[in-house]
Amino acid sequence: MWQQIEIQLPAMKRGFHLISEQIEDALRSMSPVSIGLLHVQLLHTSASLTLNENADPSVRRDMERHFNQMVPENQPYYEHIYEGSDDMPAHIKASLLGSSLTLPIKNSGLHLGVWQGVYLGEHRDHGGGRRIVLTLQGDK
Amino acid sequence: MWQQIEIQLPAMKRGFHLISEQIEDALRSMSPVSIGLLHVQLLHTSASLTLNENADPSVRRDMERHFNQMVPENQPYYEHIYEGSDDMPAHIKASLLGSSLTLPIKNSGLHLGVWQGVYLGEHRDHGGGRRIVLTLQGDK
Amino acid sequence: MWQQIEIQLPAMKRGFHLISEQIEDALRSMSPVSIGLLHVQLLHTSASLTLNENADPSVRRDMERHFNQMVPENQPYYEHIYEGSDDMPAHIKASLLGSSLTLPIKNSGLHLGVWQGVYLGEHRDHGGGRRIVLTLQGDK
Repeated sequence: MWQQIEIQLPAMKRGFHLISEQIEDALRSMSPVSIGLLHVQLLHTSASLTLNENADPSVRRDMERHFNQMVPENQPYYEHIYEGSDDMPAHIKASLLGSSLTLPIKNSGLHLGVWQGVYLGEHRDHGGGRRIVLTLQGDK
Repeated sequence: MWQQIEIQLPAMKRGFHLISEQIEDALRSMSPVSIGLLHVQLLHTSASLTLNENADPSVRRDMERHFNQMVPENQPYYEHIYEGSDDMPAHIKASLLGSSLTLPIKNSGLHLGVWQGVYLGEHRDHGGGRRIVLTLQGDK
Repeated sequence: MWQQIEIQLPAMKRGFHLISEQIEDALRSMSPVSIGLLHVQLLHTSASLTLNENADPSVRRDMERHFNQMVPENQPYYEHIYEGSDDMPAHIKASLLGSSLTLPIKNSGLHLGVWQGVYLGEHRDHGGGRRIVLTLQGDK
């Protein structure tokens, strides 16, 4: 009934990345569930997960530009500065966007809108590989 | 044990709308669950779901005004502009606020704080009807 | 299979507070689950829950400073002002950060990254005690 696996995404450059395919591959590696929920948890505090448009990549580039405006580096009020100027803004972005998603499952697949895709928000300049725990539950 | 339905909200104008009643009606249309969780997933990328104050409607108007300040239209760094000036900010707001909620169920109803209500954030000027998938699980 | 309890956190001053220990104590008070999910719901609209760095407390102080810049008090467009200048910004922060978390469980404990902790975001100057509903499900 319950299945839980861990995957590791390879290092990605700073910005928003469409990872629907990696999540769907992970789902397919588990026993199929006909109705249920897939919980997707990032094990990090300087990257994020969100659902957004899966079609036009300019949406992802605009999101990165907007988040850099809204959560700028090198602000005089930052105390947590010794891990680099990208670090504290990365923590803030991770909490603004969230580090987990719960996705409906129907007929063994993700039951999302046609334009909805899963984004990894990599907020560090060199974040490295990112670990994700997937927890699947439902009726067969 | 698991139940999953889809509802469609009618088109609403841009802004935050209290939709607790529509969510509660959808819950009541399913077999009752005494302890459990109701997952509520919006199938769109330019609208959002959040919990906030269900009493004073000025809270919803102030949220719209604040989000329009924090995520303004017509910024010079936007590349994704051909779907209208309301579109890219709508995508950003959808990710800031989130497109799903997981709500505790107790005694067949939503187990929330007395002032907590479900908001639909309609971020497009003319978003149209909005589809929501509800997934219910728990003990009878 | 399903367990649901409520806890109350004591009043905390305005700012972000690491509450992983209180959540882990609450989890330990329930029957152990070997794989599952713990849903954590705040019953309030002027405080928030988020996952972020559990080690350096300067991260929590910087988050408070940044959120006060990004969601300032006393803006001319606020209509909801009669509950104090900290109130409307608190509602906005609660929706930006979120009022619930769903946390993976493995071997009876929270299965999170080594640096991930649970923060309560207290956004009111005098928010008082905060009630949280925890809903646990999984396989023994």
